[in-house]
Amino acid sequence: MNYSSFNPPVRTLMGPGPSDVHPRVLTAMARPTIGHLDPAFVSMMEEIKTLLQYAFQTGNSLTLPISAPGSAGMEACFVNLMEPGDKVIVCTNGVFGGRMKENIERAGGVAVIVEDAWGTPADPNKLEDMLKIHRDTKIVAFVHAETSTGVLSDAKKLAEVARRHDCLTIVDTVTSLGGSPLKVDEWGLDAVYSGSQKCLSCTPGLSPLTLSERAVDRIKKRKTKVQSWFLDLNLVMGYWGSGKRVYHHTAPINPLYGLHEALAMLQEEGLENAWMRHQQHHLALRSGLEAMGLSFLVKERSRLPQLNAVLMPEGVDDAILRSRLLNEYNLEIGAGLGALAGKVVRIGLMGYGANMKNVMYCLEALETVLADMRAPIQKGVAMNAAQSAAVLN
Amino acid sequence: MNYSSFNPPVRTLMGPGPSDVHPRVLTAMARPTIGHLDPAFVSMMEEIKTLLQYAFQTGNSLTLPISAPGSAGMEACFVNLMEPGDKVIVCTNGVFGGRMKENIERAGGVAVIVEDAWGTPADPNKLEDMLKIHRDTKIVAFVHAETSTGVLSDAKKLAEVARRHDCLTIVDTVTSLGGSPLKVDEWGLDAVYSGSQKCLSCTPGLSPLTLSERAVDRIKKRKTKVQSWFLDLNLVMGYWGSGKRVYHHTAPINPLYGLHEALAMLQEEGLENAWMRHQQHHLALRSGLEAMGLSFLVKERSRLPQLNAVLMPEGVDDAILRSRLLNEYNLEIGAGLGALAGKVVRIGLMGYGANMKNVMYCLEALETVLADMRAPIQKGVAMNAAQSAAVLN
Repeated sequence: MNYSSFNPPVRTLMGPGPSDVHPRVLTAMARPTIGHLDPAFVSMMEEIKTLLQYAFQTGNSLTLPISAPGSAGMEACFVNLMEPGDKVIVCTNGVFGGRMKENIERAGGVAVIVEDAWGTPADPNKLEDMLKIHRDTKIVAFVHAETSTGVLSDAKKLAEVARRHDCLTIVDTVTSLGGSPLKVDEWGLDAVYSGSQKCLSCTPGLSPLTLSERAVDRIKKRKTKVQSWFLDLNLVMGYWGSGKRVYHHTAPINPLYGLHEALAMLQEEGLENAWMRHQQHHLALRSGLEAMGLSFLVKERSRLPQLNAVLMPEGVDDAILRSRLLNEYNLEIGAGLGALAGKVVRIGLMGYGANMKNVMYCLEALETVLADMRAPIQKGVAMNAAQSAAVLN
Repeated sequence: MNYSSFNPPVRTLMGPGPSDVHPRVLTAMARPTIGHLDPAFVSMMEEIKTLLQYAFQTGNSLTLPISAPGSAGMEACFVNLMEPGDKVIVCTNGVFGGRMKENIERAGGVAVIVEDAWGTPADPNKLEDMLKIHRDTKIVAFVHAETSTGVLSDAKKLAEVARRHDCLTIVDTVTSLGGSPLKVDEWGLDAVYSGSQKCLSCTPGLSPLTLSERAVDRIKKRKTKVQSWFLDLNLVMGYWGSGKRVYHHTAPINPLYGLHEALAMLQEEGLENAWMRHQQHHLALRSGLEAMGLSFLVKERSRLPQLNAVLMPEGVDDAILRSRLLNEYNLEIGAGLGALAGKVVRIGLMGYGANMKNVMYCLEALETVLADMRAPIQKGVAMNAAQSAAVLN
């Protein structure tokens, strides 16, 4: 055993995340580590909180990054807001709704599922009907932007319905934050989590989170302790709060440098400009894909610009396509998940990666490889010839 | 609001961690991000597993880094090995034993405490006595190297006692891994977690973990689901295991580059050499501290080389001392925690930070500031004069 330094290949990341990380963020990651209680670090934490409030469009004072990936952010919302026995309605239209159900049940709650087909948005009317049946529901949970299908749901409407029935909302914005309009306060969302590695152009590993006053109030009035010590927001707030910092866990210092840089860049660009940039490059990608005869899983009106689920043409093996793009072009695109495995590929245009160079490179590479793959007869002959040659030798 | 890039001050980190990070590790953090299912990344993950097996001195196949700080590693051990109602004995001799108790109770278990004074090691005889009283105990948990006091406990003996009573062990090696002898297989430890930011010279945010076959067997025979989805090792292993990778969460790619680099460096130096280096620099620090008339909280035989709890001399305010070292010398040392607040300072010599330059710089800075602080009369006069001047103006 003698391992040398790991030098990764330089890829173009156009899958469902991680997306291409901006060089400024990578540079920030390498700055000298300082202590997690250092006054200079504490000032930076305050800036991260303010910058996250901007990104989420909220004045919520409990706005901070959880020191772990997006799935820990999801778990933080459920274990803090729920108590054993609580009923939670989950609008499910992809992989991540299913993960929410797992979280609810593991926290001792009862999950009620409102199901919509993969590739369609969550239906507020179905939610309303279910809330009328389950009048003891405490929380409504849904995914704003489904990474598994590329669908945007109407978070504002879903939250309105939930509020009308006196429910708090838990909202997954892992793929929407920084890429699609998201207005936490205006839409009245309660517990909202995201990830660093999608439209923020940052490295994976952190989960931005924001909680409304109503949600904080629910936590303060808990009768039972939060089942996770690591994710207990009462304790996390002791460290991230604005008073005297109380040691909880050692914060991931360098990844937070990266997040700070990514958020500062988002502020420089302006949130609306970032949203528009995602949309424009999506339109450019769409034109190219349609010119190639490819089509989308999701109808135009609820299509996410940053996550394009593209239907595979008859006879094209997506695994071969993806592996050829990776090996011959250093280009990563994503596979379909669950029921969509083999049926779609997912092309991400997230954060820094939503740029014209990526769009044009992806279209060109796709077209070349697909043309090559669609010439099966010639290839077949060639392969058979090669195989025969191998046998003959 | 207009925040620019954060440029941290360049500190010397000689507190309880994070410790000074080697430039090679910082450089690795900034390498281009690739996908978490990229074949190149998967190969690197395999190397990390092998390197961690070396660091832990184990052949355990379940050896991997949890994608979150050490306190999540602790929680992973408890929530995976315990089921509701299980009785766990915790040997407590500092802050982190107390945190274990919290974890047990939040996982629905019963915690029985074997208490030793802060600054002394956990007593195997007391543990044995308690195991004779509580014959239904399932797990024994203890801290190998208490970061709050600088005490090394005899993990081998404690594990022997636990095994004699048919208990699994959960062992905190956050501060010992890479700094003090630790032999997971030889000592028969079952669930062992650590942190990246101490004697591995890496940035904070990851928690190396290893589980014995016995521990894995316990997890496989669970009757209830693990209460945390994010920390469920059945699911984590689906991603880190050696078969087909199943997506669980998005791994923190760049921090894992850093961990790989840190572990490769440990392997280059050799584990025994690293242990010896910590010991040698501790002895040099000790000589200097004793020459200044300072003494240690912990008796020599159970003193950790990498975490030196130094008693504050009469009349010295440790907060002023620490803040002067930070502000005038960019040198971070740690405060006392809990019962030791104000009574000790904690000087870390961890990983890359265990070098002669740090030892000499720390001694010189300490001596200068302490001499200055011990001249209170002159200072008092000067301050009064300044105050009078202020009043007169």
